[in-house]
Amino acid sequence: MAAARTLRIGLIPGDGIGREVIPAGRRILEALPSSLGLKFSFVDLEAGFDTFKQTGVALPDRTVDTLKKECDGALFGAVSSPTTATKGYSSPIVALRKKLDLYANVRPVKSVAPSPAYPEPIDLVTVRENTEDLYVKEERTYDTPDGPVAEAIKRISTRASTRIATMAGEIAARRARVRQSLGDNSKQALVTVTHKSNVLPQTDGLFRSASFAALAQQRFKDAGVKVEEQIIDSMLYKLVLQPAYYDVIVAPNLYGDLLSDTAAALVKSLGLVPSANVGDGFAIGEPCHGSAPDIAGKGISNPIATLRSVALMLDFLNEEEAAARIYKAVDGNLAEGKLLTPDMGGKARTDEVVEDVIRRL
Amino acid sequence: MAAARTLRIGLIPGDGIGREVIPAGRRILEALPSSLGLKFSFVDLEAGFDTFKQTGVALPDRTVDTLKKECDGALFGAVSSPTTATKGYSSPIVALRKKLDLYANVRPVKSVAPSPAYPEPIDLVTVRENTEDLYVKEERTYDTPDGPVAEAIKRISTRASTRIATMAGEIAARRARVRQSLGDNSKQALVTVTHKSNVLPQTDGLFRSASFAALAQQRFKDAGVKVEEQIIDSMLYKLVLQPAYYDVIVAPNLYGDLLSDTAAALVKSLGLVPSANVGDGFAIGEPCHGSAPDIAGKGISNPIATLRSVALMLDFLNEEEAAARIYKAVDGNLAEGKLLTPDMGGKARTDEVVEDVIRRL
Ligand SMILES: CC(C)[C@H](C(=O)O)[C@@H](O)C(=O)O
Ligand SMILES: CC(C)[C@H](C(=O)O)[C@@H](O)C(=O)O
Repeated sequence: MAAARTLRIGLIPGDGIGREVIPAGRRILEALPSSLGLKFSFVDLEAGFDTFKQTGVALPDRTVDTLKKECDGALFGAVSSPTTATKGYSSPIVALRKKLDLYANVRPVKSVAPSPAYPEPIDLVTVRENTEDLYVKEERTYDTPDGPVAEAIKRISTRASTRIATMAGEIAARRARVRQSLGDNSKQALVTVTHKSNVLPQTDGLFRSASFAALAQQRFKDAGVKVEEQIIDSMLYKLVLQPAYYDVIVAPNLYGDLLSDTAAALVKSLGLVPSANVGDGFAIGEPCHGSAPDIAGKGISNPIATLRSVALMLDFLNEEEAAARIYKAVDGNLAEGKLLTPDMGGKARTDEVVEDVIRRL
Repeated sequence: MAAARTLRIGLIPGDGIGREVIPAGRRILEALPSSLGLKFSFVDLEAGFDTFKQTGVALPDRTVDTLKKECDGALFGAVSSPTTATKGYSSPIVALRKKLDLYANVRPVKSVAPSPAYPEPIDLVTVRENTEDLYVKEERTYDTPDGPVAEAIKRISTRASTRIATMAGEIAARRARVRQSLGDNSKQALVTVTHKSNVLPQTDGLFRSASFAALAQQRFKDAGVKVEEQIIDSMLYKLVLQPAYYDVIVAPNLYGDLLSDTAAALVKSLGLVPSANVGDGFAIGEPCHGSAPDIAGKGISNPIATLRSVALMLDFLNEEEAAARIYKAVDGNLAEGKLLTPDMGGKARTDEVVEDVIRRL
């Protein structure tokens, strides 16, 4: 029997319901059957708006250092962002993505059951570039006779575009492999490259050409990965009208942010949609929902997005079997539809959903 | 009897089905009852990708000059954009918006009938800033050891943000007046300001603060206009989940582009959605759909978006009664649902739809 692999996981609950769902993530990891040969150790880490209010810093150095030096992966809950600009505050998850070079934000969106609007199953992944575009946050403001004018830089590099498109190709190939192993012939591997190069020929044009070059690699052709493109406005239009068509969608940072929220709406609840922030050899699982101050502290937040984010993190740490167990247990809970949190029309509490999923592991 | 007002209208069909729908727009104007005291004269103008291929210029000076010197308003069809960057080509509608300072892009989206996904009627307008943001198209590319990097400027000014938010307030107030005159109490006037100031505190923060300042004017309060805000990613999420809630949504240029296409998808067809590019004293009606090369020349393109764009142009030229006639005739055609083009599941040709709407004027 192989020696157990021990993974050290940073736990960063953040604000609001982040404090309820991250413990749920920890519980599912601890409940994985020992036959998988996996052990976990955990370290609690701080970040968020509450941390900022207490310490003046939203992302303490200790959090970044511990992740870099000690951890194999992490779970990030959610942070509240002040809607008004707050001096000195800037989003810790955006900073973390950059500091750890977690260059991909991967968000699988999957429908629970056919709906009248979408009779065909939705099963797609958005692969969002996570380090540049307008998220470089280089802004300046200057005065004019007509009042202040502000500018921001949108930066697109060959390097970041190439690696994100390459990851999209790999994810498409992996998904095709999984579908094939399940005898599922419902769709061909497809990567859709989105951009707005008709308005931004240099920046988005570079994203487009670097993506096509990366996706032209022989290994993707061998894996049967088809490549298409969509201008981002038509992409959103088509996504809403025929989401079942899409498989993997790759996008620069901002469009990816908007696409993934729109895709989440098609399956009716952000409470279901996981994400992973992925770099070379490191992954942070992060539910797509926010900190939901309105329901925080009530114990009724939906843990599904976090449980799926745990699985997604494990996927990118090459623990595909453990990941598959969690996905299956979650799908079982949703398919039965008995223990659901209020956002899903049910009455269950966070803990009850977690226990139900654990029973199904 | 008051002397007839003569409006001179520039007709810019552009490419593809633009050549079929713009003549439809002209026909509806010519068919307006003379009792309205309106006369029209027309001037044919060139722009588009075909024009570019023939002359090397996508937007000839003559087009801009004629609009500026002779016209009261115009109708713009659609242009094909090359997906690859084509040396010297840049979108003529984007240029026209800037050259004529048509600072607002107004897109009303209205459902034809309740659908299983959206049982409540959708009736909203996106008001998109039309002159700046990333559409200033200031880009540069430089070499690095890791390959080329490109940058674009996103510019947001107090002046442009203030005037677009003011227009949004005016549109909300006007819509509330119209609803009241029809005894419709279904919703209160609401302007939703969208931005991403959590990531872009200076640029989007400026859009946000200038918008709130503009919308705080006493005349909007007196008209009962409520003001809310949504971060653009949540906005798209909520738009898909509960579009009936929204009334007027105001956004910087790029978000507005994406919001309006997403909203169009909710009513199932871009072939229904009109727009107007509006400046002080000038308006260009423009259907939201593209040039649709796949169906161009077949005579089956949907003229509804153009007919509604004609009405919208008239609204902004202060011919509200003429506009109301066209809206009503179009709604009558859609409600009956007998003469519809193929994109709407019907078999009618463009001309048959136009004739049906004219009969209902
Ligand atoms: C909170 C915000 C900064 C963040 C983003 O824009 O990336 C969020 O919307 C997300 O998608 O994770
Ligand atoms: C064709 C393109 C340049 C244009 C835009 O982005 O404004 C179009 O999408 C629109 O919305 O009118």
